[in-house]
Amino acid sequence: MRILIAGAHGTVGKAAAAELGKRHTIITLGRSKGDFTADLMSPESVAAMFAKAGTFDAIVSCTGHTYFGPLATMTAAQFMGGINDKLMGQVNLVLAGLKHIADGGSFTLTSGVLNRDPIRQGANSAAVNGAIDAFVFAAAIDLPRGLRINAVSPGLLEESAKKYEGFFPGHQPVSSARVGVAYAKSVEGALTGKVITVD
Amino acid sequence: MRILIAGAHGTVGKAAAAELGKRHTIITLGRSKGDFTADLMSPESVAAMFAKAGTFDAIVSCTGHTYFGPLATMTAAQFMGGINDKLMGQVNLVLAGLKHIADGGSFTLTSGVLNRDPIRQGANSAAVNGAIDAFVFAAAIDLPRGLRINAVSPGLLEESAKKYEGFFPGHQPVSSARVGVAYAKSVEGALTGKVITVD
Repeated sequence: MRILIAGAHGTVGKAAAAELGKRHTIITLGRSKGDFTADLMSPESVAAMFAKAGTFDAIVSCTGHTYFGPLATMTAAQFMGGINDKLMGQVNLVLAGLKHIADGGSFTLTSGVLNRDPIRQGANSAAVNGAIDAFVFAAAIDLPRGLRINAVSPGLLEESAKKYEGFFPGHQPVSSARVGVAYAKSVEGALTGKVITVD
Repeated sequence: MRILIAGAHGTVGKAAAAELGKRHTIITLGRSKGDFTADLMSPESVAAMFAKAGTFDAIVSCTGHTYFGPLATMTAAQFMGGINDKLMGQVNLVLAGLKHIADGGSFTLTSGVLNRDPIRQGANSAAVNGAIDAFVFAAAIDLPRGLRINAVSPGLLEESAKKYEGFFPGHQPVSSARVGVAYAKSVEGALTGKVITVD
């Protein structure tokens, strides 16, 4: 398969690319580096990228940041930052990608653990993840041409555990190898409308 | 209790106001009518409203529209419309309301059935509902002063069934009386971080 991986240079994206790259042709998409670049928060930028990059059998997104901070001092702008980046970035990739994906192809988005196992300061991240999980659940029954859509929802990655030390008490970090395999389940399997958790 | 109900003149808001009004003082908030008015999509407008309206024991939100339409032709702007209206409107009410709610008070937001029982053309609505449900789940453990937060997630209301005929095949409409009681469970009970479904 010819597979586009957005965010292929991040921690999660590298895990997806390492696993899928064993059997498929990977085209990388980044904010500032990769085979192609785009600002996923801009529908125009995403459309321009697809016009150059062509058609894919699978589109995988491992992108997006959310806001971490106490709810009591959170501003609407901080909350919207996470919505625009991690939710709309990935939704924009799907909406534009619908014209650039082969019949029977798949979309795989990335959410995360915080809407099933919340932490302090994680309300924005939970909301964004909840939106992504619900989006793939409902979008799956509204896709044409045998297209599929799932989300991978990884726990805290081993590679990130040091960086977030103290913020995720009691969370068991997961290996990037296990996270990578979850993307293969979505791309190579037949599931649709599912959240594939890695805990 | 002194309870603010945003969207008190809508179908769901009327149900909440009818039930809670039996035992509490209801202050209504609307886009263009009510005891107070505000544009919930504007943090400044919400803050200005609270400066006039004072402090509440419970803040209930029954507001927000989402976009309905096929995913294949949905635009980013249409998707964002639902995010801005139903998600950010309610989040703005919580973020600003944190300064105007009594110790031990509660927030009750409104999501809806489409992220647990999806329909065609409902992907935006599902994403918004999923974000709201996940937000209250995670926000509950990050609230100060014994504050609580829940969401009521009603099925298709009997009052709306005619309007949406054909869009919700097989959905069993729920009575507004049952929906109203769900708001009492959140406001008068001790739950927090919960999605109270009415199916």
